Amino acid sequence: MILENDLVTIRYSDRVYIKRVKKGESLNVKSHILKYDDIIGKEEGILLNGFFVAKPTLEEIVKYGFKRETQIVYPKDAFYTAIKLDIPSCKRILEFGMGSAVMSAIILKTMKEDAILYTHEENQKAYDNAIKNLKTFGFLDDRLKATLANYNDAKYDEGFFDCAFIDTKEPWEYIDKLHKELKPGANVCFLVPTYNQVSKLLESLKDKFFVYEISEILLRKLKPNPDRLRPEDFMPAHTAILIFTRNINHSY
Amino acid sequence: MILENDLVTIRYSDRVYIKRVKKGESLNVKSHILKYDDIIGKEEGILLNGFFVAKPTLEEIVKYGFKRETQIVYPKDAFYTAIKLDIPSCKRILEFGMGSAVMSAIILKTMKEDAILYTHEENQKAYDNAIKNLKTFGFLDDRLKATLANYNDAKYDEGFFDCAFIDTKEPWEYIDKLHKELKPGANVCFLVPTYNQVSKLLESLKDKFFVYEISEILLRKLKPNPDRLRPEDFMPAHTAILIFTRNINHSY
Amino acid sequence: MILENDLVTIRYSDRVYIKRVKKGESLNVKSHILKYDDIIGKEEGILLNGFFVAKPTLEEIVKYGFKRETQIVYPKDAFYTAIKLDIPSCKRILEFGMGSAVMSAIILKTMKEDAILYTHEENQKAYDNAIKNLKTFGFLDDRLKATLANYNDAKYDEGFFDCAFIDTKEPWEYIDKLHKELKPGANVCFLVPTYNQVSKLLESLKDKFFVYEISEILLRKLKPNPDRLRPEDFMPAHTAILIFTRNINHSY
Amino acid sequence: MILENDLVTIRYSDRVYIKRVKKGESLNVKSHILKYDDIIGKEEGILLNGFFVAKPTLEEIVKYGFKRETQIVYPKDAFYTAIKLDIPSCKRILEFGMGSAVMSAIILKTMKEDAILYTHEENQKAYDNAIKNLKTFGFLDDRLKATLANYNDAKYDEGFFDCAFIDTKEPWEYIDKLHKELKPGANVCFLVPTYNQVSKLLESLKDKFFVYEISEILLRKLKPNPDRLRPEDFMPAHTAILIFTRNINHSY
Repeated sequence: MILENDLVTIRYSDRVYIKRVKKGESLNVKSHILKYDDIIGKEEGILLNGFFVAKPTLEEIVKYGFKRETQIVYPKDAFYTAIKLDIPSCKRILEFGMGSAVMSAIILKTMKEDAILYTHEENQKAYDNAIKNLKTFGFLDDRLKATLANYNDAKYDEGFFDCAFIDTKEPWEYIDKLHKELKPGANVCFLVPTYNQVSKLLESLKDKFFVYEISEILLRKLKPNPDRLRPEDFMPAHTAILIFTRNINHSY
Repeated sequence: MILENDLVTIRYSDRVYIKRVKKGESLNVKSHILKYDDIIGKEEGILLNGFFVAKPTLEEIVKYGFKRETQIVYPKDAFYTAIKLDIPSCKRILEFGMGSAVMSAIILKTMKEDAILYTHEENQKAYDNAIKNLKTFGFLDDRLKATLANYNDAKYDEGFFDCAFIDTKEPWEYIDKLHKELKPGANVCFLVPTYNQVSKLLESLKDKFFVYEISEILLRKLKPNPDRLRPEDFMPAHTAILIFTRNINHSY
Repeated sequence: MILENDLVTIRYSDRVYIKRVKKGESLNVKSHILKYDDIIGKEEGILLNGFFVAKPTLEEIVKYGFKRETQIVYPKDAFYTAIKLDIPSCKRILEFGMGSAVMSAIILKTMKEDAILYTHEENQKAYDNAIKNLKTFGFLDDRLKATLANYNDAKYDEGFFDCAFIDTKEPWEYIDKLHKELKPGANVCFLVPTYNQVSKLLESLKDKFFVYEISEILLRKLKPNPDRLRPEDFMPAHTAILIFTRNINHSY
Repeated sequence: MILENDLVTIRYSDRVYIKRVKKGESLNVKSHILKYDDIIGKEEGILLNGFFVAKPTLEEIVKYGFKRETQIVYPKDAFYTAIKLDIPSCKRILEFGMGSAVMSAIILKTMKEDAILYTHEENQKAYDNAIKNLKTFGFLDDRLKATLANYNDAKYDEGFFDCAFIDTKEPWEYIDKLHKELKPGANVCFLVPTYNQVSKLLESLKDKFFVYEISEILLRKLKPNPDRLRPEDFMPAHTAILIFTRNINHSY
């Protein structure tokens, strides 16, 4: 049931909006009007005057609801990574940096009730925006420990973390610390945008992390026209390169 | 800690094995030997004689551990779909058919403790294999209700399901039933391998399901060589087309 | 040497212009000015105030010089097709329709001196634009026989053509005529934008044309930054599907 | 007409053969037999017992006929490059190295009657194989000047070449010489397999060559099944990166 003040996703043609519905208000797109009074009190999934209205999915929230201070982690990359890291099986999850908190939100949604996400963001503006995004859309809870700091300035016990997601400009600066503070065998994903970073990171990982996959994900969408089925005209050609590794045990 | 009878993933060069370690046994690859006695009792993440040994991730289990009676749902498609469907937010999840249970396993891992997965497989051989896969790798629990039947032969209340994953040859045969048994606004993913099926499915969805995305995912891997960085020589060109839809509310 | 009235390609950052240089004139991009007087009389390859100036390549002419009345054949598709059809070895080449004459221009440039291109365009406006494009950029010569007509309204001897490029909405309407007027074994490329057309075309080709390849070409560009090497952010996801076939000999 | 001793392309299911037909001989594939006596004296385009027989195209010759001493330039890359370099408009074309002569053959086929291809290969074995490939398939003529040497050991006049195709391991070793021996504005394509080489090459090109495109071409093929249309299961993920540049004029 869509109630007043609920968040909804409204789609009209190719456009997508995340809105909070208020009595008496409306959404106006190209002279087409959706009056919120017509949807309040109704079950979601409403198709009205070309508008489609439903409760937002996790993807819609992070993609269309979150404010962006930085380049975001794209859903195609974030979803793949979250399950590749086996987030539902991890108790202590490390993240650095938060960026706009897209990955934080997906981890919080995917991890178990008794898990903790330890996330770090050193940029004040990005941190404030990230926390605000999480708060606005209901992701803030006790399972999140967010620190306004560079990961190198935080301190954790040896073998503390079960897995990590590292999205920072110079990931090679953190390898020794990661190697120590992650459990042996822990799954770690590094996200970088350039090939130079991949090369430099690979050099720094030697003997400390076992690299088992380096991937780029291309998402090619089709237009939903049954009689003239074909891909969309354009697609993102590049978002990020994902480097998946596991922490090498040196204790024996 | 790797104990006797534990499952481990063993990687050697490009090869990946899921094995249960037993005292006195060993893995022999191209005249290189990994003696299990050397890893039992040690923390995971072991790099020994070119072998890397760790506890299997969810992906490794479904990809290398599961027996295949049918074409499997690929991790790249399954991971994207699981979070796109917002599985952690769903209480009653519908699946048809199970195939080799790859998607069932990922859903079971991603859904909450109080959720139920209602899955259906009409082929006896596939069903037996699917259940065996889930059992062997510890996915079977009370949250799974598996039925050896065509979904059309099962019966559920109106608006019963929160979301659905439909991987069957003729999905258009089930649209009316899906439309009725899913909640208004429920998120449904259809997986089909051919463009003809996409067209035929789109026709059948009209007025019942709102199509918001049709995607193909291409995963391009890089070779982990920092001095000669480049993609692998070959990649899968096609696994499946994913059609994401939401159930239209007709009750108002 | 760049002389007055010569065509040149001018690149500035991501922008590309085809211009005819005139004394006293200039190009103004974002308050940066290229005075043509500074380049007239100089050898091409000039880098001046961030502008790069050279004689246009074939690709630059068809891509940036040609006026478009219709969706054009993209260079990536046209170049592949021209050599796949072995245009330099063909004496009588059939084309239908001309569109904006991109493929006509590439065929004319690639074919030998004693070859003839027989091209057809039924739409008056497209035809006029196509001929004007060819004329403006110097492609018009005796080796081109252009007809303002549907190919079905033209008449040729049996086994007349060595190869054909067919870019029309309903290619299945022309299969019998193509089969008769092409030499046995002749190489034919059909270009269509949708998967439905591919299916319908394949049905119509049965027993008349041997299909040896159906391809989509994806061109992924990198940004020319040596320290931060990575692909561009966006790319065309779809232009056309190319169906390569050879005429089956039924005379024995 | 297929005559005795003619080269033909024979396709059977996914297999492709380049053969010289001799009376009394035959091709045997999986217990299916094509007797050459049945095709000699007939027009090409023959479909017989599941075999398709026609005269080889340029692509079939270089792909299936040429012997490979080295990694070859793939048709998808070679075709795009040949027209991008505007080979039909060039009089003096530089190539280094020859590899297996795939690109040499395509240039020879595409360039005009009065043009000359100056090609260089420093490896004796590769050179012998390249020349043999060209000879066997009829590409050898007066328009080819092949030199068994490193390009740095050859000597040409300033501004001698109209364009160049450079496929060598360390292309940055030749930039000064290329810059001098190519005409101002000349179009040059460099082909390299790794991202590290792209970065290093880009550094070396600064102020001498203007980089206007860096591309990777992905070719995705569809299976020719009209009722179950879909891409092939696998595709090449990587062959080469193409760097397109023009020689900067420094004479003013």
